[in-house]
Amino acid sequence: MEVANRYVTIKTHIHGAPAESNFEVQAETVALAIRPGSNDIIVRHLYASIDPYQINRMKSHSPSQKAAATASGINPGEAISAPGVAKVVVSGDPEFEKDDLVTGFISWAEYSTVRAGDVRKLDPMGFPLTYHLGILGLGGLTAYAGFFKLCKPMKGEKVFVSSACGSVGNIVGQYAKLHDCYVVGSAGSNDKVALLKEKLGFDDAFNYKEETDYKSALKRYFPDGIDIYFDNVGAEMLEAAVANMNHFGRIAACGIISEYTADGSRAAPSMLDVIYKRIKIQGFLGTDYLDLHSEFCSTTCDYLHRDKIRVLEDISDGLDSIPSAFVGMFRGDNVGKKVVKIAEE
Amino acid sequence: MEVANRYVTIKTHIHGAPAESNFEVQAETVALAIRPGSNDIIVRHLYASIDPYQINRMKSHSPSQKAAATASGINPGEAISAPGVAKVVVSGDPEFEKDDLVTGFISWAEYSTVRAGDVRKLDPMGFPLTYHLGILGLGGLTAYAGFFKLCKPMKGEKVFVSSACGSVGNIVGQYAKLHDCYVVGSAGSNDKVALLKEKLGFDDAFNYKEETDYKSALKRYFPDGIDIYFDNVGAEMLEAAVANMNHFGRIAACGIISEYTADGSRAAPSMLDVIYKRIKIQGFLGTDYLDLHSEFCSTTCDYLHRDKIRVLEDISDGLDSIPSAFVGMFRGDNVGKKVVKIAEE
Repeated sequence: MEVANRYVTIKTHIHGAPAESNFEVQAETVALAIRPGSNDIIVRHLYASIDPYQINRMKSHSPSQKAAATASGINPGEAISAPGVAKVVVSGDPEFEKDDLVTGFISWAEYSTVRAGDVRKLDPMGFPLTYHLGILGLGGLTAYAGFFKLCKPMKGEKVFVSSACGSVGNIVGQYAKLHDCYVVGSAGSNDKVALLKEKLGFDDAFNYKEETDYKSALKRYFPDGIDIYFDNVGAEMLEAAVANMNHFGRIAACGIISEYTADGSRAAPSMLDVIYKRIKIQGFLGTDYLDLHSEFCSTTCDYLHRDKIRVLEDISDGLDSIPSAFVGMFRGDNVGKKVVKIAEE
Repeated sequence: MEVANRYVTIKTHIHGAPAESNFEVQAETVALAIRPGSNDIIVRHLYASIDPYQINRMKSHSPSQKAAATASGINPGEAISAPGVAKVVVSGDPEFEKDDLVTGFISWAEYSTVRAGDVRKLDPMGFPLTYHLGILGLGGLTAYAGFFKLCKPMKGEKVFVSSACGSVGNIVGQYAKLHDCYVVGSAGSNDKVALLKEKLGFDDAFNYKEETDYKSALKRYFPDGIDIYFDNVGAEMLEAAVANMNHFGRIAACGIISEYTADGSRAAPSMLDVIYKRIKIQGFLGTDYLDLHSEFCSTTCDYLHRDKIRVLEDISDGLDSIPSAFVGMFRGDNVGKKVVKIAEE
């Protein structure tokens, strides 16, 4: 049996801000059969995760840059691997059966062929499937590990989160509030600022687009200084945060969305501040903390069951919406975790 | 009884590179007597430590910068506190007796009045007194704590040390060799490079003044990447090190001598590298690790007794030589720990 499959790909490597015209949807026919002896699994996709860092895989890299870039680069015409939730159609692996729900790195496609190592069985635990791409997925783990393990927050500490309505930032801020920290977030619109303050319980929030001097802005919101900065944007905001950090402050360098599409825009934080204030700047990836998954998951499920944490999701419909969903993320269109629904469950 | 005392001071706050004309030697008369009831101690100085970071205390700071600057700022006309070795002349404190050797924060002077908390009794342990300002003093502790505790080196790791003939850098490189690491140092002259390779046992070394592209230079010296960078200079060298760091690399931010005297020259390391390579950049001060002192001291004394570590000292003679000693440090005149001998022991 064969099915029509469609997948999103880039036409050429992308530099600067992405445009929808950089992408195209390819069509192919896929045989729903496994070669004898193979333990491949064919899955039908339900939800795809849309994440800003993918832009870094879409650039052309020199060999030396490649070493630094995450995972593998994406070449024009190739399927784009990405986290998702899918359902098994045909399995050559004895651990997986037809109709099993799975999650892991699949792709921006309707169908894909994966191996057992790429995906794991998903128990929805009574939550919507999309949660397992966001609050209970890699974004949640990134927030949890980065905030609790890397920043080692103490109750009462002052926490600044940039891109605070983003997929990771909104969770960091909520964890920080649940940990009795003082939390201020920055976001790119007044609606987002209102959401942070009124719905997510942030102590305060500001629209960075209305600030001309981030250093003064942070001084206003943190008259006693910042103890923890969870950085999702980089560049001038990172510089301003370093200038406002307290002694022994910690910066979790999680993302630099403001620099992904603007090569020249680099942060030049004061190293004099870093030394004298003994600031730690630590880069990390959520995938480094997979051993924390069960701790993270039980803590977060508990918060969800007790309505202590709110889920911010932004769901678009259909594979064809992936390019606009991805491009819109760099304009700040999304509120919370961006997911595209590929097919009915 | 009274004695003539002389001390070094700044004429005005200093901006940019210091000049000898920024300093002057003041004279005063000091009564060698303690007020009844006071537990002050009057000490006669033998050796004064000359350290680059003092320049940061000599700048004029805005109130917000002041919070970041180390310790207290230095005002024109005031005595300049600095580590030193001295001998007790008169003591109002029962713990100290005449002729006791002491070390701690005294000043760039011939005599000073201190309190028990400012100094501690010094047991030379058979070593020259100057060692207690360098290899067995704060510089040694800074090297020890920064390298072993902050960078957590594993045997065989690749270590880069900038300002490797400086007071801290030369010790870091020697500790790293004793820990079976591969060590390359940068320095500012071919004589220093030869010293590092031939006398201190560095695996390799280079003259940064002969390199036009630090990133390529480090790629040459570290074809397999850098695991640990002990940063004493900041700016472009820090950027180049980040570009050449391996995954999970650690950067001990100890000093940024290249930026102390050039306000505009800031490092803008790639935060994309920091994130994807999970680099840690950690600012620190040796004084944060005073609890390590006995571990550091016994380890280092043992190395000294077994001739496993060489002592690089650069000693000038007389209080009047302090301004030129200090100014020369920013031209790279010193080789190893810069000390000024104030008086005969």
